[in-house]
Amino acid sequence: MKLHWSPRSPFVRKVMVAAHELDLVDRIERTRTMVAMLKPNLDLLSENPLSKIPTLILDDGTILYDSLTICEYFDALAGGHRLFPLPGPARWKALTRHALGNGLLDLLVLWRNERDKPSERQTQDWLEAFGLKTRTALDRFEGEAASLGETPFGIGEIAVGCALSYLDFRFADLGWRNGRPGLAAWHEGFRARPSVRATEIVADG
Amino acid sequence: MKLHWSPRSPFVRKVMVAAHELDLVDRIERTRTMVAMLKPNLDLLSENPLSKIPTLILDDGTILYDSLTICEYFDALAGGHRLFPLPGPARWKALTRHALGNGLLDLLVLWRNERDKPSERQTQDWLEAFGLKTRTALDRFEGEAASLGETPFGIGEIAVGCALSYLDFRFADLGWRNGRPGLAAWHEGFRARPSVRATEIVADG
Repeated sequence: MKLHWSPRSPFVRKVMVAAHELDLVDRIERTRTMVAMLKPNLDLLSENPLSKIPTLILDDGTILYDSLTICEYFDALAGGHRLFPLPGPARWKALTRHALGNGLLDLLVLWRNERDKPSERQTQDWLEAFGLKTRTALDRFEGEAASLGETPFGIGEIAVGCALSYLDFRFADLGWRNGRPGLAAWHEGFRARPSVRATEIVADG
Repeated sequence: MKLHWSPRSPFVRKVMVAAHELDLVDRIERTRTMVAMLKPNLDLLSENPLSKIPTLILDDGTILYDSLTICEYFDALAGGHRLFPLPGPARWKALTRHALGNGLLDLLVLWRNERDKPSERQTQDWLEAFGLKTRTALDRFEGEAASLGETPFGIGEIAVGCALSYLDFRFADLGWRNGRPGLAAWHEGFRARPSVRATEIVADG
């Protein structure tokens, strides 16, 4: 199978962490694909009309996205219910945790886009809303730090960990660890996992 | 259970269509909750740090989001695998279809936000990218119109149908039906479903 991939996309990283956790990496042929919010990738568009990565092409031509769909596909390929609990309270908790981690990533990508505009085109209310939601999400994760560590590692923890690592990569000045020692400690454990070390985001330049 | 709800949110509409399809509406207490991209709802923030609707609160206090998680929870509550196929090709197809319909909705909400800015703060490349991706997604759906009608009605079709209805509501000038007769015909069938008629988006004013 072929994966539209980039070394800096946090959404691609989620599926690659999942692939490493599930021992599927050797079955994935990565194709480096550049996407940008302001410039759709015309080649990718014919496979994924939203021009987003990751996009996965199976050997029979079936096209799968978004990152959550691909992660659940990988999970099934590896036997099922390893990163995605069976239907029941554990599953709803995992999917909600994923939704918060992934929603934070969506927001951070928009925030970065807005922050990098010339100031006369920035919308101040929007920048403030991004900041408030990010702090609130981080405080929620801090409150759940014990639960993050106790839950079997799965799709929720992958999303949260990748969002925190993306903060380190693109929002280092935010100092997200300040006042959040439980979350910072959990993230150290996340970073030490082989699947996470193998997918370290490559710095600019 | 309590649902943070609004009559105009297409994401809320997805979960309400699912609830009607699954005959769960009587178990849901709807709370009208206003959210806006530029103004986080401070009360909602304590339940969902992203300040997004729908957000569902179960009787035991468990909080569930986003709309996909809530739809799958409803599906399980109604016996399971009615709107979400079992793991296998049908499921990946449904989730990918959902991702395209839902991703189109995400894009349309951003597009509307950008379009409504004073022109000196608009980013032209972004507006053009939104237009191109929307047309490409609609063309893909047109190509899949027969498949949309043949697939058992589920989470993918709900997302596509709600996205098309949102286009009618907020982007009527786009004329999405032009050149897409198969999709237009499928959408007529979607609109005729009792679950869709019961969740008609309320116009402004």
